[in-house]
Amino acid sequence: MTLDLASLKQSIEHALSQHLPATSDIAPALVDAMRYAALGGGKRLRPMFTCAAATALGGNLDKALPAACAVELVHTYSLVHDDLPAMDDDELRHGKPATHIAHGEANAILAGDALLTLAFELLTELPGLTPNQRLACVRTLAAAAGWQGMVGGQVLDMALPEHASARVDQRCLEALHAAKTGRLIRASVLMGGQVAGAALPVLEQLETFADAVGLAFQVRDDVLDVTGTTEELGKPAGSDIQGNKHTFVQLLGVEGANRYADELLQRALDALTGLTLAHDGLQQLANRAVNRSY
Amino acid sequence: MTLDLASLKQSIEHALSQHLPATSDIAPALVDAMRYAALGGGKRLRPMFTCAAATALGGNLDKALPAACAVELVHTYSLVHDDLPAMDDDELRHGKPATHIAHGEANAILAGDALLTLAFELLTELPGLTPNQRLACVRTLAAAAGWQGMVGGQVLDMALPEHASARVDQRCLEALHAAKTGRLIRASVLMGGQVAGAALPVLEQLETFADAVGLAFQVRDDVLDVTGTTEELGKPAGSDIQGNKHTFVQLLGVEGANRYADELLQRALDALTGLTLAHDGLQQLANRAVNRSY
Repeated sequence: MTLDLASLKQSIEHALSQHLPATSDIAPALVDAMRYAALGGGKRLRPMFTCAAATALGGNLDKALPAACAVELVHTYSLVHDDLPAMDDDELRHGKPATHIAHGEANAILAGDALLTLAFELLTELPGLTPNQRLACVRTLAAAAGWQGMVGGQVLDMALPEHASARVDQRCLEALHAAKTGRLIRASVLMGGQVAGAALPVLEQLETFADAVGLAFQVRDDVLDVTGTTEELGKPAGSDIQGNKHTFVQLLGVEGANRYADELLQRALDALTGLTLAHDGLQQLANRAVNRSY
Repeated sequence: MTLDLASLKQSIEHALSQHLPATSDIAPALVDAMRYAALGGGKRLRPMFTCAAATALGGNLDKALPAACAVELVHTYSLVHDDLPAMDDDELRHGKPATHIAHGEANAILAGDALLTLAFELLTELPGLTPNQRLACVRTLAAAAGWQGMVGGQVLDMALPEHASARVDQRCLEALHAAKTGRLIRASVLMGGQVAGAALPVLEQLETFADAVGLAFQVRDDVLDVTGTTEELGKPAGSDIQGNKHTFVQLLGVEGANRYADELLQRALDALTGLTLAHDGLQQLANRAVNRSY
């Protein structure tokens, strides 16, 4: 069966809007900044992975949506903080002014903090799950997002350009991206499995799938930074070169990087072999994540 | 029985050090900044409240310590972010350079993010508790720390000085501080009760106690900003006046604010009436929080 990704994306946008605060007596400016950051566009790949994994394994979409929103809130907060002047200093996100440009730097820092906190609050209320399943989701998301995962990867990413002349090998670059983007993509797929009550061997297959997709996504991202336009990307093209970033294009060339992304995509699809899936959503999303033009 | 607060503080410092990451293959600079921020001093009032509440109600200190650490990590992250140039722009914290001065602004933002995330991860592993008790702690902490609590209060606090000429009444100022500092102090006491498995009516008494202590703490804080020295405070004295902040001293005068703090302390102590407590730790801490000289 084919999963309708466009309709899934709409469900996620709707759920996100519902789970974000709408008003606040004490700090309406904070709520505005949170909603601006979270509802201002984006591919919604991570929450689609959560929902697709859950429903492919027989789980209920309504149970998966709040967990999917939690993943997207964490992703959103990380973009808001990464765009700050003290970090990547990007003024454009999803083709619009970054949150700190539109709402001021202080509100952007605090909106990021609030989005991260809200993600964990959402997970405590996952409907129709046992307390143990909810706790597993909190643990999965926290370990993926924290010092050992996403935040650690961002620190490493910022530290490397200082050593632009140093040789950074492929192993090091893959460790960076496994932490910076891979762990959260893995968490988004795993939480889908956890919501559906999947057994450990199934979760392990999902993990292999997600890790290959996450790396392929990043390899293609490096290519697109070189070959895409600012308009297509919704952020400044060529920013990796300007920022002295180490990339897979630098290591493998455009063609080599593209070939590697294709290999990784195949590895991801192979990891699903033997699973009985209710639809092709995971495969579709893997293809979309890797074979996108922006 | 008298609770030994000095020894409790030592236990908390030790537990904090144990629960923080010690090394990282990918981002040692992040781990350094996290440890600098979290182990660089502080009164440890909030985690002492958690431990005192838990053990006063017959709970085990070992069960309470990780929850206490989680509260302190959230408090620490909030200080790291509040001190940033885009926020309060304070260069001194606990008598030492603020985290962004010592470790750079980007690492300070990310260390704050990682401390917040680690707090929730810790709560998923609370030893000897049921999954439901752990989830209750996650929910209590997230709701206290997020948009409806601490972060919301900080946004309001930064917005008010722009209206320094406007009349801010006592009700508004109390709502600000209930969100900015009160909610986390309430959470620290409540989580102690939750760890000890306290019944709902007991938790309600603890809440009344904590809310009165939290407000009294802030009222005295406003007084100390006027009457203390930079050396005593470990941060610049008089910063409220310089920052055009609205304070209880402004509303009530130094004497009136001191009298109000004493009244609130009495209200807090009265709230504990009727509870069978194993020691006087909560009363001692309430006194220390309100009758401090720095």
